[in-house]
Parts: sequence; structure tokens; C-alpha cells
Amino acid sequence: MVAWLVGLNTLKIQPFKLPPLGPHDVRVRMKAVGICGSDVHFLKTLRLADFVVKEPMVIGHECAGIIEEIGSEVKNLVPGDRVALEPGIGCWRCDLCKEGRYNICPDMKFFATPPIHGSLARQVVHPADLCFKLPDNLSLEEGAMCEPLSVAVHACRRANIGPETNVLVMGAGPIGLVTLLAAHAFGAPRIVIVDVDDYRLSVANNLGADGVVKVSTNMQDIPEEVERICEVMGAVGVHVTFDCAGFNKTMSTALSATRAGGKVCLVGLGHNEVTVPLTPAAAREVDIIGIFRYKNTWPLCIELLRSGKIDVKPLITHRFGFSQKEVEEAFETSARGGDAIKVMFNL
Amino acid sequence: MVAWLVGLNTLKIQPFKLPPLGPHDVRVRMKAVGICGSDVHFLKTLRLADFVVKEPMVIGHECAGIIEEIGSEVKNLVPGDRVALEPGIGCWRCDLCKEGRYNICPDMKFFATPPIHGSLARQVVHPADLCFKLPDNLSLEEGAMCEPLSVAVHACRRANIGPETNVLVMGAGPIGLVTLLAAHAFGAPRIVIVDVDDYRLSVANNLGADGVVKVSTNMQDIPEEVERICEVMGAVGVHVTFDCAGFNKTMSTALSATRAGGKVCLVGLGHNEVTVPLTPAAAREVDIIGIFRYKNTWPLCIELLRSGKIDVKPLITHRFGFSQKEVEEAFETSARGGDAIKVMFNL
Amino acid sequence: MVAWLVGLNTLKIQPFKLPPLGPHDVRVRMKAVGICGSDVHFLKTLRLADFVVKEPMVIGHECAGIIEEIGSEVKNLVPGDRVALEPGIGCWRCDLCKEGRYNICPDMKFFATPPIHGSLARQVVHPADLCFKLPDNLSLEEGAMCEPLSVAVHACRRANIGPETNVLVMGAGPIGLVTLLAAHAFGAPRIVIVDVDDYRLSVANNLGADGVVKVSTNMQDIPEEVERICEVMGAVGVHVTFDCAGFNKTMSTALSATRAGGKVCLVGLGHNEVTVPLTPAAAREVDIIGIFRYKNTWPLCIELLRSGKIDVKPLITHRFGFSQKEVEEAFETSARGGDAIKVMFNL
Amino acid sequence: MVAWLVGLNTLKIQPFKLPPLGPHDVRVRMKAVGICGSDVHFLKTLRLADFVVKEPMVIGHECAGIIEEIGSEVKNLVPGDRVALEPGIGCWRCDLCKEGRYNICPDMKFFATPPIHGSLARQVVHPADLCFKLPDNLSLEEGAMCEPLSVAVHACRRANIGPETNVLVMGAGPIGLVTLLAAHAFGAPRIVIVDVDDYRLSVANNLGADGVVKVSTNMQDIPEEVERICEVMGAVGVHVTFDCAGFNKTMSTALSATRAGGKVCLVGLGHNEVTVPLTPAAAREVDIIGIFRYKNTWPLCIELLRSGKIDVKPLITHRFGFSQKEVEEAFETSARGGDAIKVMFNL
Repeated sequence: MVAWLVGLNTLKIQPFKLPPLGPHDVRVRMKAVGICGSDVHFLKTLRLADFVVKEPMVIGHECAGIIEEIGSEVKNLVPGDRVALEPGIGCWRCDLCKEGRYNICPDMKFFATPPIHGSLARQVVHPADLCFKLPDNLSLEEGAMCEPLSVAVHACRRANIGPETNVLVMGAGPIGLVTLLAAHAFGAPRIVIVDVDDYRLSVANNLGADGVVKVSTNMQDIPEEVERICEVMGAVGVHVTFDCAGFNKTMSTALSATRAGGKVCLVGLGHNEVTVPLTPAAAREVDIIGIFRYKNTWPLCIELLRSGKIDVKPLITHRFGFSQKEVEEAFETSARGGDAIKVMFNL
Repeated sequence: MVAWLVGLNTLKIQPFKLPPLGPHDVRVRMKAVGICGSDVHFLKTLRLADFVVKEPMVIGHECAGIIEEIGSEVKNLVPGDRVALEPGIGCWRCDLCKEGRYNICPDMKFFATPPIHGSLARQVVHPADLCFKLPDNLSLEEGAMCEPLSVAVHACRRANIGPETNVLVMGAGPIGLVTLLAAHAFGAPRIVIVDVDDYRLSVANNLGADGVVKVSTNMQDIPEEVERICEVMGAVGVHVTFDCAGFNKTMSTALSATRAGGKVCLVGLGHNEVTVPLTPAAAREVDIIGIFRYKNTWPLCIELLRSGKIDVKPLITHRFGFSQKEVEEAFETSARGGDAIKVMFNL
Repeated sequence: MVAWLVGLNTLKIQPFKLPPLGPHDVRVRMKAVGICGSDVHFLKTLRLADFVVKEPMVIGHECAGIIEEIGSEVKNLVPGDRVALEPGIGCWRCDLCKEGRYNICPDMKFFATPPIHGSLARQVVHPADLCFKLPDNLSLEEGAMCEPLSVAVHACRRANIGPETNVLVMGAGPIGLVTLLAAHAFGAPRIVIVDVDDYRLSVANNLGADGVVKVSTNMQDIPEEVERICEVMGAVGVHVTFDCAGFNKTMSTALSATRAGGKVCLVGLGHNEVTVPLTPAAAREVDIIGIFRYKNTWPLCIELLRSGKIDVKPLITHRFGFSQKEVEEAFETSARGGDAIKVMFNL
Repeated sequence: MVAWLVGLNTLKIQPFKLPPLGPHDVRVRMKAVGICGSDVHFLKTLRLADFVVKEPMVIGHECAGIIEEIGSEVKNLVPGDRVALEPGIGCWRCDLCKEGRYNICPDMKFFATPPIHGSLARQVVHPADLCFKLPDNLSLEEGAMCEPLSVAVHACRRANIGPETNVLVMGAGPIGLVTLLAAHAFGAPRIVIVDVDDYRLSVANNLGADGVVKVSTNMQDIPEEVERICEVMGAVGVHVTFDCAGFNKTMSTALSATRAGGKVCLVGLGHNEVTVPLTPAAAREVDIIGIFRYKNTWPLCIELLRSGKIDVKPLITHRFGFSQKEVEEAFETSARGGDAIKVMFNL
């Protein structure tokens, strides 16, 4: 049984015919699947960026489970292993894959990106090299959290976060919060996070933010808010800003608040077209770095969770079973936001 | 005698008291000074970005001349040496200077950036380490051209242009054309250049562009123009786009035309705020790189000119002497654009 | 029919059973195969580094041919296409492959590296994505030359050669000479090459070296030779040295001749253990970069040859057919060295 | 009064005439000065690498003190400020300084590197931008420790240590131990340290090493020791090895133990010429990185100490006053090694 996205706002738990198990594949009994903002977006609009759901599609891509069967050539796993799944399969034939940038492979096959089926399912078949064994001290839910955490880790890597990078995070939603956790684990000495919502900021505070700044949604407030951000950050200033929201206002604030020679990293992608003060930022050689998914992040995520450098458990605020009714409720909960940060299925 | 910018649209050739010659300084008899777009902008508006001309200021910063006197500690130059001058002096005490990014030093002293005086002058006093000896086969005019060429060289370095980087240049003005020359010298296998003006495109063609694309100023034409650009570029696509114009339209075209994993380099800075399709570009991990002036570029510019890898002489279209009348005419000529690419004073 | 390495100094032209054609494979009628120093080494010793020939193995890996048949999923090639072959197949499952460093994949399958068979054969079956179509203006011999050229291109990339990198090349054998050509194509302003042999140095001169230095094999001469090298190079000094020989003496000279902050790139690998002045070089922050084969180099090699930036034809000094007798003669010719730079089979 | 190195094994506390205070200088009352291995080396041999003590020279360069007077242009400091001193002054006119690599400036003026005087002195005059204010929670001794810590920080930066870099440290002397601390602060998930001495290894253990390996001084033991190191490190292997000893054996072990694509960083520089298995390492693309002193490290060191990410206090094992007798005893203590890790003067 899997969760089919069959039409606008319509999910159905129905059977699914598993593909055959190839020599390098494994079959995984899925145990924990999180809901991502993009899942909700597909449910509400049947599209995301250029991707359009034209045929019924299995939804879900943040997942972990237990190995049930392994292909004939699989050496790194055995049945019973608990694994977290990396959802995207590169083609390994294009120049981007061969250069190590498989996340932007034009032929990538990615869970729940049409026309590829997702992983909110009792079972999936997946390449063994994309299934990463979890150590004993990690739960399967933490395994599923490797997916959103991977976005943050990829962003921290591309922005080269380290012990001398002061970090500003725009937005304290699920991606903003994992970015805060990842930046901390990469050694950022000072992390300030910005949001419109007091509750989200209090969560950020509890997760270890060095400073939080509440802002409005009003563009006119940007200069005053930038001033407050810089005050909270301190004299050295902001080296890297992660925009985890993707609005005109968050990007404009990011560009203005970042110091000369710094970077603005676009993690949360919003409206296609934005109106932003790009020129003054460019004149300070503030570079803008795009982030699309991730690559080679699972081993690091697992290590950061295993060692306790990152604890994602506080982000899991709601849990649901895998019945028709619970699936519907779970997606509504995630869509509503508010105190729901990460909604998780236990299958 | 120097050219004082004394008010809106008003330049006056008047005396100037030279500062004393420090132990590491040289006094240079100026021989060739080019007019830059920023000089014209200061003349027409008394400001540029955040810089405002509040007191009379000597204008000019693209220059070369002959050493007349050297300070007591100067070892690398002797009177009679022909030199090109790098116009900006870093503080060498801030962290940006010490990290080698002195071009964005907040305390930089730069010719003709208020309140620092420029170099359209019979004589200047300047640090010896910013005066670079010209080889015998280069003219003083070519020495002065090292300044605009430096912008292009810095952009090619930051964008990491090499023998496998297909390059798109937006804008065939003076900076677009030196960028074309520099990208070619850095080994770019294929360079396509875009402009609204047939004459400028024909100049680009003569300077070695592999393809030229004429475009409109109409935003609606972007999709069709991107298609034409990609056709002229060929199947591999655009790795790096240099936007040498800085308009909404050129930036939008740049962001759309650049392939996944590529870079858009903002060289010509226009309006402060722009409306651009940033999100789809970020989702292809197209990074945006800001360019502000240059650093450590004179030795390379001189070598590229000396070896013949770059020939800037065709860009010098107009020459003037240093009388009150000729200075006024020269700035009018430069401001008019059209067939005037680089306007040069011979002092 | 293929060339089997069946024992010490023993090659036999005998039949070979082609593997089946997979959906992403092509069958290539081989037309040009070059002899590499490593082929000769295997013939003379049945080993190279840790690789030992335990079973009869088909030899050869520098090759180009014509597509005869394509697998069901192959889109980029059709029968009749002339292609150059990249000889190594990564596993695409290990972390090194996924990070884009497939050249050091521990499970790589590489032509003529035991126990994998090579390509001195009438026909081979190979993955389509490792077969690169040649433009009309390139011969199949030039296609085969992409393999040694790839070593040089990979070295120039890793050493970041560009228009401001003065280059020293130790050794004017086949790899030294292609390194000279590649460094030139990457824009190196000044390239000096060193060898013990007058003929090789004269070839280097004809291929465009800016300076040549004849040296001895005597360690005592190093200081004087370094002085001569630095004189020929000029005041700025050596930024990158490619050691294409791999002897105690060449490495020691490389380490001493390279300026502070420069790099020594080990391209030609010789004796396992070397005695070298590593410490004084490290104290000038001269880094040492290892080179193993190449990755993602064929498209660039083909472009450099197509555009005429590199001409490898002068390196092909001897040609042989594919009979038992000619194969033996060809290997003897290659082993003898002297005026034999690249020995090529025309099948 | 200062400590003059007047001859072999001879230090004399005698007066010193302070240079005049320039506009950008400060005068510092010195309070804490550590003894470095290089100080001992100069005392015992009057030379280090190419530097020879020909005239009496003030010794010492690891130091912190209290500002007594500031030059007319100094803005960042006031009398009474407690500061740590960076000992080297770049020329800021050469290309290396301008590119941000001032640590290898050929004209650097560095405390106690002949003919420049050092800082084991009651007072010194030094540029204000090389004096870094200590926060209240750091002692002056911790300020002096920024110097050895800077070597480790520079090495971690050059080797790009982060949360996915497994680190091996060869040698648990003062530099090995600060390297362990710095690698930990840069996020290294697993650090193994190697020494011949049980006491030093126990110190390393207490400072947070994830594993320690006791080795011999016998070259024959390398293969077995590499095996043990790799076992202690675990399956992923060693990404970066810091050789903090600089012997044939430590370098050979470093080169053998580091995984494909990794780096060996030469921090402790020993004999000029070494005999090492360079070729097999190069064939795995293990790069070798030289480390000379440091650049731009004081702010980071102070931040790492302030935040508690690094605690250097356990390394300070012995303290002395500044009388003739105590200075002699202090150097003897440092030279003897054993349980003396860092010997510190309190002036």
C-alpha cells in the first residue's frame, strides 16, 4: 500500500506494484516518512516549479526503513539493517554527474518528483548505495530527518561555513531550523535567526540560536530591521546569510545585511521573480549561491546525529499512522504550519 | 595643472598642490589618461552609488605616465621609467586587506572617488608599488588601458574562466568589449556577445567574438532571445555570463541563459534595485558573483598586452589634448557614446 | 583478434571473445591505438605499481575507432561515428565517484590494468558515455592521443594553470611534451622545459617552449641547474613545476626551483621511495600535488585539438600495422625511446 | 630590560633601546611570553633553517601584554587594553602580501628571526593592527598561547578541516597537541594521535583525542603501525594527516596512512632532506601541503578560546619569572622536554 496523489487535494492509500529488484538494489520496509513543504505544495497545486503531476503519483521522499531483501551484488547491507534513504538517483552518464554535481543532473530520478514515484509506501525498491545504515543510537525517525537536514548540510558546505563564519538565517521554518542546527555543527561562532513568528523564534532560541530578531512583513521596515540584525550580530558582521524563505523581503534583507565579501545562500526558493537590491550587494562582492537539494550528505548527517552534534528530535512535533484518515490529517497538519514543524508518519 | 570637477557639468583646468613625496612614493608625469563611464557619471550627477562629490575634486583614474622622482626607499623604479598606475590604495590594516581582498577595503583611497583626488593631472604622487613598469613594446595609452582591462581580468579570475568555459557577454560597451578580450585571453573556447547596437556588435565581431546576438530593450523578447543566444552558443551551453550592462533585462537574460551549475558575474552595475528571475536560476545552482574594481591585476594586464594575447588599441577611438576646451569636448564625446568607445587624453 | 600479453616480453595476436553489448554500450571497430610507457612496463615486468599480470591480458588503452553497433538505450552515438575512448569505468557507487573523483575510485575498471582487458584489439565493447565523437577535422590518431593528453590536462586543471602561471616541466618525454602543449593551451605565459637529451629539447623548442635547459643526471649539479632554470624563467619565477620524470633528481630540482606559494605537480611517477628536500619547500608553502590518470578530460582534449590550440600530430613519430611482427617491432621501438615519441598502431 | 641571545647557549638580561612610537604603533608592557622550540633551537645552535644569528638578538615571540601608549592614528586600542601580539609584519608591497599570503612575504619582519629583535622584553613597540584585544575571560597567558595555536589554526584552514574530515596527528608535542585542539574546534569527527611517548599520549587523551597509537622510532615498524592507525581510525580512513614532527618516519607513516584523495600537511619541519614513499601517495592523489607560520589567525584563536571551544591552559606546565637565573632555567626546562609542554614567563 502506498499514498497516491491522484488529484488536487486528494491522496488515496492504494496498492502499488513494486518494480523488480535489480542486482544492486534493496527492498526496504518503510518505517518513518516525514512530510516536506514540497509534498504539501504538490497536493495543493499538483505542481512545483516546472514539475507537473499529470498521472497519479506516489508522494513522499523523507524516509527511513528496514532492509527486507538485497540484490545479488549488494555487499554493504543485509536484511534487518535500519537505513535512511537518499531519494535521488543520478544518471551517472552526464557531465554534471561525472563532475560530482549529481544533484543538478537533468536526468535525475527523484522520489515524488513527477513522473517518479515517492516513498510514502509500505515498501520501496531502491539502489543499495543510496541506503545508509543507521547506527544503533539513531531512531528511524532521525533517519528520515536526514533528508531535510541534507538541504542544510549542502548549503553549509557550498557556503563554506566554519569556525569563523558568522551566520544569519532568514526564516525559522523547518528548513531555517535545520540550517541553524547545521551551521552550528559546522562551527559557526554566532548565528542569528529572523522570523515574523514569536513561537518559531522561541523554538530557534531553544535550538541554540545566539540571537533572534523578530521582523514584520513590511518592506519599509527593512533598513531598521537590518540595523537591528547587525546590532544583534555584533561588530564583525554577517559573513553568510541563508535565505530559507525566498520572499522579496527576506532576500532584500539578506543582501543588505551581509558584509563585504560575504555570501547570500538561497535555500528556500519562493516566487520565480524577485525585486531585490542586487547592485549594492554586488558592489560589495557579496556573492549569491543557489542551493538545489544536496549530494553526498547522508554519511555526514548520520555522523552529526550519531555524535550528538545535532539533535533533530525536537523538530518532530506531530506523528501519524498510515491509514487513509491519518494521512489526510497529517497533510492538513503540515499545511496549517503554526506549531507543526515536522510531521512524521510511523508506518 | 589638473582637471577639477567643481560642480554639475563643470570641469576646470586649474593648479593643484602636490602632496609631499614619501619614502615609498614616486612622482609621475602623467601622459595618457582615459575617460571612464564613472567619470562621466560624476560630472553629470556629482555622485555614484553612495559616493557624493561635496568639495571640488580632481577627476580621472585610468592613467599612465613617466617617473620623474622617486622616494628614498623606492627600489623598483627609476626616473624615466614608463609606468601604468593602479588607482586604489588599500589600508593594509583591515581584515579584508590582509586576506588579499583589498579591492573591497572600506578605507580604500581611490583616484577620483570622493574625497580622494584623481589623476587627470600633469603630475601625481603615488605609491611606487602601485606603479607598474611598461615594457618597451607598450605605449602609455596601452598602459592607461590597464585600468578598464583590470575590471575584466578581475571578473575572469573570480568567474574562473579557462579553456572549458563558454562565455556570454551582455553588453558591447567598453567594459563588455574588454571582457570579451580578457575571456578570450583566459582561454574561453566560445564567446557570444549581446547588444542592442549593430555598430557595437560589429566591433565585437572584429575583436574576435565567436557569435553576436542583437537584442531589443523589450522584456517580452527575453524567451526568444535566450533561445537565439543558446543556439548561437551551441549544445554545451553557457557556463559563465558576464552582465556588463546591469539592467533588469540583461540580468534576467543572463540568469535564464546560463546552464545548470554555471555563474552569472555582475560586472556593470546599474540600477540599485532589479526585478529578476532569481529563483529558477538558484534552483539550477547558477551562482551570482559581484565584481568591484580589481586587485593585483596590473602585472597580468601588462603581460597580456605585451605578449599580444590582448590588443586594446582598437578600443581607443578618440584622443584629446589637455586644454580647457579639449577636456570639455572629450567628456562630451565620451558621454555621447555611439562610435566613441574609449576617449583618451594625451597630456 | 587482439594483442594478448601472455608472459614476460611476450605478446600474441589471438582471438578474443567480445562481451555482450549492454543497453548503454557500443561496439567499436578500433582504428588507432598508441603505445604508452605503462604498456611497455607491463610487457617488460608484468607489473606496474601494485598491479600484477597474473593471467593473459589484452594490452593497450590509448585508442580511437568507429562505432559499429549501439545498445538499445544509446542516444548520443550512431554506427559510423568516429570516437575517442576514455579507458576507465568508475563504479559510481563509492564516495570518490560520487564526489567527482572517479579517477581514484578503488573499483575502477581500466583498459589493460589487470585483471581488465585492454583495447589493442580489432573490436571492443565499451560504455557509450565514455566514447566521445570526433569532429571532422580530427583524425582517429589524434583521437587516440586524447589519452596521453588527458594526463596533462588533468595535471593543468589540478595545478590551476592559467594566464599568470609560469610553468616548469621536468622531462621532455611523451608526457612532458603533452604537458608543455596543455600548459600552453591553458594560457601559461612562460614555459621552461628541462631534459638530459638534446633531441628531446629540440622537439620541445619546436612545440613552443619559451626556454629549454639541458641538465645532467648528477645530483651535485642541482644548485647550479636551479640557478640556470631560474635565469631562463625570469624574475617572477616558477609558479608550478610538473615533474614528468619522477626521479630523485627531477623532484629535488622541482622542489628547489618553485617559488614560495607555488606548486609541484607529480605527473610522472617513478621509484616508490624518493629522497628529496621536502622541508625547505614546505617552509615556502610549496604544495605537492599528485596526479593519477584523469577525469572528464575527453571533451576538453577534443576541443583543444579541434580549435588548433594544441597540435599533437608532431608527437606521432612511428606507425605500425597490426600483425604479430609489427606489434613486436612497435613495442621494441617504443621501449628504445630515442627519436620514438609516440608509437601508433593503425588497425 | 630584554633577554638578549648573545652567543651559543648564552642569554643575558640587559637593557634595550625601544624604537620610536610611530603613528600606527602601540607600546606594550609585556606580561606573558612562552618559549617555542625555535627559540630553544636558536639558543642551542644560533641558527634555524636559513636564518643565522650574527649579532646579539632579543629572543622570544609568543607574547601578550598591556597597552601603555598608543600612536596618534591608533583607533582600535587604548592604554590599559590587554592584547595578544601577532609577531610578524609583512611588507604590504610584494605580490604575496597583496594576495593575502603575507606569511610567506620574503621581506617579513618577525620577532626573533634574525636580524629582527624578539619580544621577551619588558616593553615592545609594535603595529596596533597586530595587537588583538583580549576579552575579559581570557588571561594574558592564554593570549600568548595564540601564537602556537595560530600554527595549528593555519594548518587546519589550509587543510580545510571540517565536520567530515578524519584527522591523524603525528607527534604529541606542543604543536601536535594544539593541532589536536584546533582540529577538534574545526569539527573533525575523529582525531587519532601518534607518538613514541606514553606521557604525551596520555595528555592527548585528556585533551580529547578519539584514539592514540604508540609507535616506535624504527622504520621497519611502519607497515604494522599504519595498520594499527587505520584500525583505530575506522573504516572511512584518514582524510588529513598533520605531520607535527617532520622525521623520515613520521612523514612516511603519514603518506602511507592517508586515504586516496586526502592530504598530508607538513606542520613540524625537521631535516631538510627526507626519504619518503612519495610516489604511491601521489598515485592516490594524496596532496602534500606545506605550512609556514600563519596569517590572520589571532581573531579566530581568541574567539575559539573565548567560547571555550579550545582550552590551552592544560598545556602550560611550567612558569618562570624574568630574572637572569629564571630565564636560564626556563630555557633548560623547555629544552629538556619530558613533562614540560609549554614553558611560560610571567613578567
